[in-house]
Amino acid sequence: MQQDDHLLVLPAVMQEIFCRILQQNGLSAAAAQTCARIFTESTVDGVFTHGVNRFASFVDYLQKGYISKNAVPVLKNKCNGIEQWDGCLAPGILNALFATEQSMLLAKEFGIGCVTLRNTHHWMRGGTYGRHAAKQGMVFIGWTNTIANMPAWRAEDVRLGNNPLVMAIPYQDDAVVLDMAMSQYSFGALQLAAMKAETLTVAGGFDAAGNLTQDPAAIIASKRMLPVGYWKGAGLSLLLDILAAVLSGGLSVHDISKQEAELGLSQVFICIDITKTGSTSSVATLVENIISDYKQSVPAYANSPVIYPGERVLQKRKQHLQNGIPVLKQVWDVILKLDTTR
Amino acid sequence: MQQDDHLLVLPAVMQEIFCRILQQNGLSAAAAQTCARIFTESTVDGVFTHGVNRFASFVDYLQKGYISKNAVPVLKNKCNGIEQWDGCLAPGILNALFATEQSMLLAKEFGIGCVTLRNTHHWMRGGTYGRHAAKQGMVFIGWTNTIANMPAWRAEDVRLGNNPLVMAIPYQDDAVVLDMAMSQYSFGALQLAAMKAETLTVAGGFDAAGNLTQDPAAIIASKRMLPVGYWKGAGLSLLLDILAAVLSGGLSVHDISKQEAELGLSQVFICIDITKTGSTSSVATLVENIISDYKQSVPAYANSPVIYPGERVLQKRKQHLQNGIPVLKQVWDVILKLDTTR
Repeated sequence: MQQDDHLLVLPAVMQEIFCRILQQNGLSAAAAQTCARIFTESTVDGVFTHGVNRFASFVDYLQKGYISKNAVPVLKNKCNGIEQWDGCLAPGILNALFATEQSMLLAKEFGIGCVTLRNTHHWMRGGTYGRHAAKQGMVFIGWTNTIANMPAWRAEDVRLGNNPLVMAIPYQDDAVVLDMAMSQYSFGALQLAAMKAETLTVAGGFDAAGNLTQDPAAIIASKRMLPVGYWKGAGLSLLLDILAAVLSGGLSVHDISKQEAELGLSQVFICIDITKTGSTSSVATLVENIISDYKQSVPAYANSPVIYPGERVLQKRKQHLQNGIPVLKQVWDVILKLDTTR
Repeated sequence: MQQDDHLLVLPAVMQEIFCRILQQNGLSAAAAQTCARIFTESTVDGVFTHGVNRFASFVDYLQKGYISKNAVPVLKNKCNGIEQWDGCLAPGILNALFATEQSMLLAKEFGIGCVTLRNTHHWMRGGTYGRHAAKQGMVFIGWTNTIANMPAWRAEDVRLGNNPLVMAIPYQDDAVVLDMAMSQYSFGALQLAAMKAETLTVAGGFDAAGNLTQDPAAIIASKRMLPVGYWKGAGLSLLLDILAAVLSGGLSVHDISKQEAELGLSQVFICIDITKTGSTSSVATLVENIISDYKQSVPAYANSPVIYPGERVLQKRKQHLQNGIPVLKQVWDVILKLDTTR
C-alpha cells in the first residue's frame, strides 16, 4: 500500500513493532507496552514529530545507556499539594505519565496539585499528558525545559530552550489541548519540513546571515529558531525554565546543555480538579459556549476553517484509524532495521 | 520643567493628585491611597499604558458607575488549596491585590494555592501582582481575560481577548517578572505608539485590507491585532480564557464582550511557596546562574543588550525616581481637569 515515498502502516502493527523493539532494548514488557502505545497514539493523532519520526532516536538513547531502563521515580520532598520527584533518568514518557497521575491525586485531595520531576527525559508529545488528565475531568497546566535550541531576543547564540507549555481542559468526549513550544516551530516540525523540502508558512528563524527566513534547513543550520512573538516567547521560555528548575530542584536549560546529550530535564505538572470549582455540567456548558462562539469566527481565507487547539488531532486520528498511517519510507525502514527478529 | 510636548511630574505629586481625584470620585481614603499608589508605581516603572495614561479612563469607569466603589470580594467556594471569590465589581486593582495575598496564604498552607476572581475589573498592570508575590518569596502564575480585541488565527472578526499572562519569581532584591498580553502589542502600547505617531518594530496586526502592518493607527482602526506567534498566541489566549472562566465560574471573553463596556472579568492567581521546595539560598543561586548565563548572550546588534523580563522596569524606575516622570502634556492636562479642587 505505497503512495510515492510513503507507506501506509496500521496503528496496531506499528504499536506491536515498537513494543517488540523496546523489549529487545531492555524495557520490561509493561514499560515497552506503554511507551509503544504512546508513540503510536501520538502518530495516530498526527504528531509524527514526537511519534514515529522520533522513535529511532528514543531507541538510540536506550542503546547508548542514557535512559535508566527500569528505574522508577523517587519522592524527594512533599508539602500538602506540592511534591518533588526525582525521575532517576527513567523513560520520559513513563515518568511524565506517573507525574500526571500523581498530580491528579493531589488535585483530588487539595483542589490543586503540583508535581515536579527532575532528572527526567524528553516527554515526547506534551499534549499526551494534558489530554490524559483532561479526559479524567482535570484542568492541566504543565511544561518541560529542553536543551538550548533558541537564542534570546536580539541575541546570536543559543541559550534558551523551546520549553513546551501544555494546557488542557475537558471538552465533549475529548479535550481542548494546547501543546505549544516557545519556538515558532518545534525542532521536530523544522526537521520534518526540511525532510520534505517544504517552505514554512511564516518565518521560523534566522539564516546564517541573521535574516528571518522560511527555509527550515537554513534555520537548522544556523541553530537560530525564532521565539513565538519575538521578545515575548523568549521571555516566556526563560520563565518556564526558571520555574521548572526551581520548583523541581533540577537542571536548567543552561545545565542541560553542558552535557553530551539532552539528559536530566526538569518538568512541572499542575492539575486542578474542576469538580471542586463548579458542577461538571456547568463547566461543560461554559466550555461548549466558548468553543461554539470561537467556531463562529468569520474565516479570512476560503477553505481554511478556524480550528481550536487539539481539533486537528481528532480529524487526523479518525483518518489514520480508518486508512492507516502514511509513514515516510525512509523513517519506517530505519525502524524495521532496529527489529532484531527480522 | 517642560521638554517638547512632555511635562516632568514627580512621583509623589502624581500619587497625591491621583489620590485626591479618586476620593473626589467616591473611593474611601484607603482604597484611593492604594489605587493611586499602584497607578503611580506602574508609571514610575515605565508602564505608562497601565499607569498615568490609563488613569482618566479608570475615573470615567468610576463616574459611570461601572465600578462598585466600596465593594469587597466575597468567598463563593473553597476546597483546601483552591478558592473562588466574587469580586463584586470592586476596583480591579484592589481585588487583584486581595486575591494575590489570599493565594499566598493558601500557598503557605498547602505549598500551592489558587485563588480565582469572577466579576472583577481590569487589573491594570498584571506585573504588579507578580512582583508583589515574588518580592515575598513566592512563584506567581496569573492571568486575566479581557474584552474581545483580537481575531482567532485565520479569522477576520474579533472573538479572542489578549488575556495577559504573568509569571514571576524572586531575583536578587526584586524579581524576574513576565507580563505578556497575547497580542504582539498590548492595546495600550498600540494607543501610545499611535499617539506618538510611531511605527511598530514588528508587524502588530492587520490593516483594513487584511495585510500585516506596522502602523498602530491602522491596527486600531481594523481592530485586528496580531496574536503572539500567529496561531500559537491565539490558541494560548483561548485556553487562558476557558480556564479563567471555568475556574472562577465567571464570564468568558464572549460574555464580557456582549456588555456595553469591559466589565466582570475572570482572573486566576496561583502562588507556590518556594521555601517548601528547597532552601531559599539554593533557589537564589539557581535563578542567579540562569540569569547570569542568559545575560552572557552575544548581542546581535550593537548597543542593544539582551535583557530579562522585568529588567527594563528597574532602569526606568531609577531614572524616573531621579529625574521625574515625563508625561505627555495632553494626558496630564486631562487628569488635572478631573481635580475639582483646582
